[in-house]
Amino acid sequence: MKPEVLLSRIRVVLCRPSHPGNIGAAARAMKTMGLSDLRLVSPKQFPDPEADTRATGAVDLLANARVSDSLAEALHGCVFAVALSARQRDLGPAIGTPRDTMARLLERASLGEVALVFGNETMGLSNEEVLQCQAAVTIPTSPDFSSLNLGAAVQVLCYECRMAAFSGAAPLREQLTTPFTAPPATHDEIEGLYGHLEAVMTDTGFLNPAQPGRLLPKLRRLFGRADLERDEVNILRGILAATQQRTGHGRKG
Amino acid sequence: MKPEVLLSRIRVVLCRPSHPGNIGAAARAMKTMGLSDLRLVSPKQFPDPEADTRATGAVDLLANARVSDSLAEALHGCVFAVALSARQRDLGPAIGTPRDTMARLLERASLGEVALVFGNETMGLSNEEVLQCQAAVTIPTSPDFSSLNLGAAVQVLCYECRMAAFSGAAPLREQLTTPFTAPPATHDEIEGLYGHLEAVMTDTGFLNPAQPGRLLPKLRRLFGRADLERDEVNILRGILAATQQRTGHGRKG
Repeated sequence: MKPEVLLSRIRVVLCRPSHPGNIGAAARAMKTMGLSDLRLVSPKQFPDPEADTRATGAVDLLANARVSDSLAEALHGCVFAVALSARQRDLGPAIGTPRDTMARLLERASLGEVALVFGNETMGLSNEEVLQCQAAVTIPTSPDFSSLNLGAAVQVLCYECRMAAFSGAAPLREQLTTPFTAPPATHDEIEGLYGHLEAVMTDTGFLNPAQPGRLLPKLRRLFGRADLERDEVNILRGILAATQQRTGHGRKG
Repeated sequence: MKPEVLLSRIRVVLCRPSHPGNIGAAARAMKTMGLSDLRLVSPKQFPDPEADTRATGAVDLLANARVSDSLAEALHGCVFAVALSARQRDLGPAIGTPRDTMARLLERASLGEVALVFGNETMGLSNEEVLQCQAAVTIPTSPDFSSLNLGAAVQVLCYECRMAAFSGAAPLREQLTTPFTAPPATHDEIEGLYGHLEAVMTDTGFLNPAQPGRLLPKLRRLFGRADLERDEVNILRGILAATQQRTGHGRKG
């Protein structure tokens, strides 16, 4: 199943959100990660201009958001639901990490609709709500300050959903990273650079051939880490050749 | 080194942020993940009540935030900097995933101060700013809607920093990878090298300042990949100084 289809099967359920701005931020967070199905359980204020403002280009998710009076209604038809919870609830599902739990959520999404359930900004989810979910997740935070913004929490979990959906998908990485645009330097080209560098250092008196010390190995170590391209070797040798012309030494490389 | 200490060594640098609310959201996102060092480069409006409101319990980070006029100043003393960039820049560092790149950032944090650099909400970072960083990262988004909120982007990367810091994988990596034998070069030391190199190339006629072309960005890209050590910068500058003495030019760096 395509990652995009799996992501489209994830409902984000916000229970009793107080601030319409957070609803907008959640919509924007969802859409950046390829999620689209927003559900609101008894929102304090919705629709609201502040939600639209914070959603920016994701107002379509707000327009399509379904509002209900109960979590049970929002979860109707779901095959799996995960509750965000800062603490282990009595008899509640064991709390997992975002990475492991979102991987599990995506696995279940291949079987049907699934849900991510978030509580109210100050109260979180009730025990009764957590017990309606099959799994629970905590976003690890600093013990000194665990006050994650609701929109930020939605962003982190949606991000992990996208990472899980596209995991092992080489095409994503290919889009992200551009390989070297130039051919790599060959062994002999790099050795030519070292020879040229040694000649210039000797000419200028920076290197004493009788007592070379660790200078050359250090330069090899530095350039060895850089995965030199042919073009780069040519630039460096061009710089060296230009200094040789000025100092009256012929090219020795 | 303790994860908490590694996280305390990460600067979050916001370049030219337009909306004070986003500065507040970034501070809150940082603090939830155990980061504390916020730097602002030419913010449009700061301090501002809206920043305080969105920061909630993280106003201490705003009070301690250092404001500067240039990215170079914000990165002074850093041994590694990562730019958030939605696209591969011409000659810029290769773009990695948040997971891999934050793991690398945490590794470097064991050697000194490091930085995560974010651009303006609408314009992002300039090419010149990206070229001051040794690595780049993109947060994977839906191709249909890639408009991540600035505060949300800070949240995702700080979350990945915390996950990397507490992954427990660090000791294993320390065994696998060869640790640096010398202290890493800082941002300002590396910039000093580039200035020195430019002076020598200009003196020798290799570089025409009126038509510099892509020479300097190419050299930044090469040395950016190498994770330069202080000792290596000193060697390279020693070579440059020796050629200057021979060509009769004084040190210009």
